[in-house]
Amino acid sequence: MPRPAFDSYDPAVAEAMPAITNLTGIPEYLGIRITEVGPGTMTAELDVRPELLNPFGSAHGGTLAALVDHVLGSVLYPLIPRGAWAATTEFKLNLLAPIHKGVLVARAEVISLTSRTAVVVVEAINADRLVGAAQGTVTISQPKPSP
Amino acid sequence: MPRPAFDSYDPAVAEAMPAITNLTGIPEYLGIRITEVGPGTMTAELDVRPELLNPFGSAHGGTLAALVDHVLGSVLYPLIPRGAWAATTEFKLNLLAPIHKGVLVARAEVISLTSRTAVVVVEAINADRLVGAAQGTVTISQPKPSP
Amino acid sequence: MPRPAFDSYDPAVAEAMPAITNLTGIPEYLGIRITEVGPGTMTAELDVRPELLNPFGSAHGGTLAALVDHVLGSVLYPLIPRGAWAATTEFKLNLLAPIHKGVLVARAEVISLTSRTAVVVVEAINADRLVGAAQGTVTISQPKPSP
Amino acid sequence: MPRPAFDSYDPAVAEAMPAITNLTGIPEYLGIRITEVGPGTMTAELDVRPELLNPFGSAHGGTLAALVDHVLGSVLYPLIPRGAWAATTEFKLNLLAPIHKGVLVARAEVISLTSRTAVVVVEAINADRLVGAAQGTVTISQPKPSP
Repeated sequence: MPRPAFDSYDPAVAEAMPAITNLTGIPEYLGIRITEVGPGTMTAELDVRPELLNPFGSAHGGTLAALVDHVLGSVLYPLIPRGAWAATTEFKLNLLAPIHKGVLVARAEVISLTSRTAVVVVEAINADRLVGAAQGTVTISQPKPSP
Repeated sequence: MPRPAFDSYDPAVAEAMPAITNLTGIPEYLGIRITEVGPGTMTAELDVRPELLNPFGSAHGGTLAALVDHVLGSVLYPLIPRGAWAATTEFKLNLLAPIHKGVLVARAEVISLTSRTAVVVVEAINADRLVGAAQGTVTISQPKPSP
Repeated sequence: MPRPAFDSYDPAVAEAMPAITNLTGIPEYLGIRITEVGPGTMTAELDVRPELLNPFGSAHGGTLAALVDHVLGSVLYPLIPRGAWAATTEFKLNLLAPIHKGVLVARAEVISLTSRTAVVVVEAINADRLVGAAQGTVTISQPKPSP
Repeated sequence: MPRPAFDSYDPAVAEAMPAITNLTGIPEYLGIRITEVGPGTMTAELDVRPELLNPFGSAHGGTLAALVDHVLGSVLYPLIPRGAWAATTEFKLNLLAPIHKGVLVARAEVISLTSRTAVVVVEAINADRLVGAAQGTVTISQPKPSP
């Protein structure tokens, strides 16, 4: 299938992303780690530690949703100008199987890209199974020109 | 618009839900509180406390996504037999405005209900603004007959 | 729930829309009629005529999808400047019940509106039942300034 | 990414599908042709003939939506028992670029399959561009046992 050319890909931004460790909020709580960044792709993961489970031994759907939302927007940063902003404006997620333990991995792929918007698909894996699939839209805000 | 009759509504289950306090995982971390339960409706909220914010002062999209996922499934419990299980199988979420502080409130409404599946819409409010809108599908698993 | 103020509503545009009869393509084939237009709302309908049915007596899902797509974008025209363009960029549709005969009615409501984007929800009714529910995003292109 | 095994694939059903010509309703109007069927995959296409275009020379979004809905459900038939029924219960579609002429091609891929439900992704191409991407859920109704 045709994919964008990603001529704007900035490897220096990509290489810096896995080292970002000053997370806050849900990404810090979940312990999200970026493990791979390429032109139009990003992979991140988290450990399904016991405290994330409900009394029935499954992770709350919000765990998967938050990880999906995280890679959906972050995958854009190596593709947009420094100082530009990528905000997920909507996504749709299918939760395919319960998540009990191990590592939850999500991989994002940009399938459409203009100067104002991108469409990204995400697949999530746990215990060798596909546990989630998502498709969403990211709005890109270009940096303000310097005064 | 036509809505289900909700003949199966069990007020005793509904009344017990706001008192549930043994949350785990993301609902515990976010401090989700159920504040209203009715036939086919549920409202829940969380405090947008500073530690939920990113360095730009906004809550991660996963905060809204997790709250939406929570009410999407939970709204079914007063409508299904005791022992049955409601699992969100998919949802679509539009993130409409940044969330900086105050209380984030989400209200779910069941718009379609059969013995096997339900469709639920959710709207989320913060600082008197609509900050999220979602629509999703919940799969209902009937309890196993006793041996 | 909070709704946009719709200060930009242009009643003259709204009043003209039901009289538009030079439809082409799928809207012409389906016989879509706009029956109500208000500030942030639009209702349209079509007759479920026998030739729309498959051999099992149900309308193809594309019938509902096309009607939903039609009102999702069209509801914006009384709200945007003359010469501006409203294009549906994405939507999610739940198909809730089969459609066999009678009139299929869809009502759109704008729940979020900026100068660049709108979010719209749609509910569809047939034979006194809710047969569809949708939520989508419309991108607004402002008219080019005159030279 | 992991995919279902498709052990239930019935090549005889698959081979018969492209020859089905007694279409009705929107598929007949659009002239949808199935061009490839495999284990978990289906490709269909239509000619973007002038009468499908609006006065601005673009195909109505319902054209793409109907084609997507068509392959979303049909791709299941070689995978489910003869006499079973596959009904699209929801899908989300991003419309990525306008469609003016030529052939519109949509390819469906089943990414998750149980006895009751399937999740399918679809990509659509026109003029060497990705013009649509969708993800949806199909509910499978098993055939009634013979009396």
